[in-house]
Amino acid sequence: MMKKGCPYGTHRVIEPAGALPQPARKIDNNMEIFDNEILIDVQTLNIDSASFTQIKEQAGGEIEKIKEIMLGIVADRGKHQNPVTGSGGMLIGTVEKIGAALEGKTDLKVGDKLATLVSLSLTPLRIDEILEVRKNIDQVDIKGKAILFESGIYAVLPSDLPENLALSVLDVAGAPAQTAKLVKPGDTVLVIGGAGKSGMLCCYEAKRRAGVTGKVICLGSSEKNLNRARKANIADVYISADATKPVEVMEKIAEITNGEMTDITINCVNVPDTEMTSILATKKDGLIYFFSMATSFTKAALGAEGVGSDVTMIVGNGYTKGHAQITLQIMRESKELREIYEELYA
Amino acid sequence: MMKKGCPYGTHRVIEPAGALPQPARKIDNNMEIFDNEILIDVQTLNIDSASFTQIKEQAGGEIEKIKEIMLGIVADRGKHQNPVTGSGGMLIGTVEKIGAALEGKTDLKVGDKLATLVSLSLTPLRIDEILEVRKNIDQVDIKGKAILFESGIYAVLPSDLPENLALSVLDVAGAPAQTAKLVKPGDTVLVIGGAGKSGMLCCYEAKRRAGVTGKVICLGSSEKNLNRARKANIADVYISADATKPVEVMEKIAEITNGEMTDITINCVNVPDTEMTSILATKKDGLIYFFSMATSFTKAALGAEGVGSDVTMIVGNGYTKGHAQITLQIMRESKELREIYEELYA
Ligand SMILES: NC(=O)c1ccc[n+]([C@@H]2O[C@H](COP(=O)([O-])OP(=O)(O)OC[C@H]3O[C@@H](n4cnc5c(N)ncnc54)[C@H](OP(=O)(O)O)[C@@H]3O)[C@@H](O)[C@H]2O)c1
Ligand SMILES: NC(=O)c1ccc[n+]([C@@H]2O[C@H](COP(=O)([O-])OP(=O)(O)OC[C@H]3O[C@@H](n4cnc5c(N)ncnc54)[C@H](OP(=O)(O)O)[C@@H]3O)[C@@H](O)[C@H]2O)c1
Repeated sequence: MMKKGCPYGTHRVIEPAGALPQPARKIDNNMEIFDNEILIDVQTLNIDSASFTQIKEQAGGEIEKIKEIMLGIVADRGKHQNPVTGSGGMLIGTVEKIGAALEGKTDLKVGDKLATLVSLSLTPLRIDEILEVRKNIDQVDIKGKAILFESGIYAVLPSDLPENLALSVLDVAGAPAQTAKLVKPGDTVLVIGGAGKSGMLCCYEAKRRAGVTGKVICLGSSEKNLNRARKANIADVYISADATKPVEVMEKIAEITNGEMTDITINCVNVPDTEMTSILATKKDGLIYFFSMATSFTKAALGAEGVGSDVTMIVGNGYTKGHAQITLQIMRESKELREIYEELYA
Repeated sequence: MMKKGCPYGTHRVIEPAGALPQPARKIDNNMEIFDNEILIDVQTLNIDSASFTQIKEQAGGEIEKIKEIMLGIVADRGKHQNPVTGSGGMLIGTVEKIGAALEGKTDLKVGDKLATLVSLSLTPLRIDEILEVRKNIDQVDIKGKAILFESGIYAVLPSDLPENLALSVLDVAGAPAQTAKLVKPGDTVLVIGGAGKSGMLCCYEAKRRAGVTGKVICLGSSEKNLNRARKANIADVYISADATKPVEVMEKIAEITNGEMTDITINCVNVPDTEMTSILATKKDGLIYFFSMATSFTKAALGAEGVGSDVTMIVGNGYTKGHAQITLQIMRESKELREIYEELYA
């Protein structure tokens, strides 16, 4: 008889009591599954870039030291949550066992190869052996097991795309999928950081949804990356500007939109202090989607009030229904984007 | 001839160049107005509570020292932006002069008494004399002038409500006004911190909009404040719980909603670590409005992803169209709430 579990995995939290698995300091990584859990035979860990950089530094770059630190983290916490950065990563593996209570509820089958789309910082993990550390792309092959909770999200890896390509775009899948849901025909859309990894996917989706009556503006900083985006033909207008300069960007957007500004602005940069730029570029009754993790809640809230803008600002939830399918589909549809992402990440 | 100004007041920024008035270190507080500015004869400053607490401490509570510090801030920055907390406050005064370019564009008249609803941290201010410091309610009467930019928001003070009552509710006007826009008939709505200053206004608006087919749940921590809310009859259910305990609150909400959870959750607390509670209390395709300034962007974004929730999370913009009117109207309509707010704040 399997034990009954909570959908969020609170039944595995050891301390502090009452916490969820992510904020918890320690969780139970015993691999006997509860009735609503999925056991995964792990192949590769994709350590979060901030976390892996810290581990490499602490190890002075030595592979054996890196292994030791990683094993130490999992032994201490029952999950691969870097105690310094707090972050995790994701993993690829094969479904080994499915809890009885999930029968008929999940479309997974034993033997399916999947990527987890919830953070390693909340995933029960046991490492039996570290097989290979690929230092430059933050990937670590292991022998080990992991648990996916009932509420945990995942994507079955497609057979028609290279694994590493799928992994790299799945990392930012929330952004293009939200773009697909937010943009309507005829919209003027600005993507800040539009020539980056999540940004190009957002431009592509925005252009498809806004259609011929809409306008997609791709804002980037380096000419090199803007040119790459131009070749893939993912936007109607490309501008090079510093997204931390609100007035400069506002004036450029005013020129492009005849003073009307944008209906939707999607923020995909990886630097702080771009809230005000997003607000001033957008119509006062427009919408801003902040995918950037460098967004400050108070800067956005007080910034909009300060200029009397009634803009709706959305926190970039990493998950939205169907986000993996929507994003992988872009790699199938756009030959140009696929070439760019294969060259960069696969 | 008046000089032409930028709607956001960038023409008054002295340093750093290219900044907006709020992040700027120093702005020009010369009281000769530009063509799109409004000159205000200031009566009272309402210093932001965090800022005033710091000033009082630095002054060791001495009135003369408080005055000295305040005069020093304005002399240095051209605005009353506390260099330690970064925050400002609001002001009441009388319209003295209106820029030529605003004629026909503004409904203000010379002689109108108004409250500014943009922060003092971006408002050009000149203090000629500090008349009285009311230490316990953060109010300071002065002789002086201020400038309202074209994009600056304000409310004409109503003649039928006590000034201090109006001021106290205008401070949180964004929350009930957004509630009014978000809640639809039949919705189940949770207001976290529902017995507080902004929370009670949100409950009231939510109950009005959700109607007899909806359900409003007021969550507070102290029984005393919950009882006060109960007397005003602003919700359908009142629960006492610690909003930093996600699982505990989730279970209570599940019980009240027969496991369906809420359509909309409005977060009005003043403490950190309540993002996960808001997420777990809300339907996976529901909506969360974070009014609390203690909200962490990353905790909200990663938290929702971690439990596979597709919830839409909105950053609590302090401004929304008509927010002052919507909020003052509640004080006219609800005798019970008006009594509570008069006793607490006026
Ligand atoms: N919400 C979530 O769940 C979630 C999940 C994953 C990632 N993220 C966040 O998404 C963001 C983007 O990730 P990514 O993988 O797409 O990163 P990325 O590929 O590095 O893209 C960032 C882009 O921002 C541009 N940029 C940087 N500074 C700029 C400036 N001052 N002005 C204009 N553009 C500037 C860069 O332009 P150039 O290329 O021209 O230099 C780059 O293309 C990150 O903040 C990340 O934390 C969020
Ligand atoms: N977005 C904006 O533009 C804007 C503008 C103004 C204010 N705000 C923010 O709005 C928030 C609320 O402001 P306010 O004036 O309404 O504050 P308030 O009157 O102090 O109300 C806060 C409420 O939170 C409740 N609370 C505190 N800790 C709690 C816990 N652990 N569990 C459950 N309830 C808890 C308190 O309950 P008890 O009364 O029972 O102790 C209190 O009623 C603040 O964070 C403020 O920064 C935002």
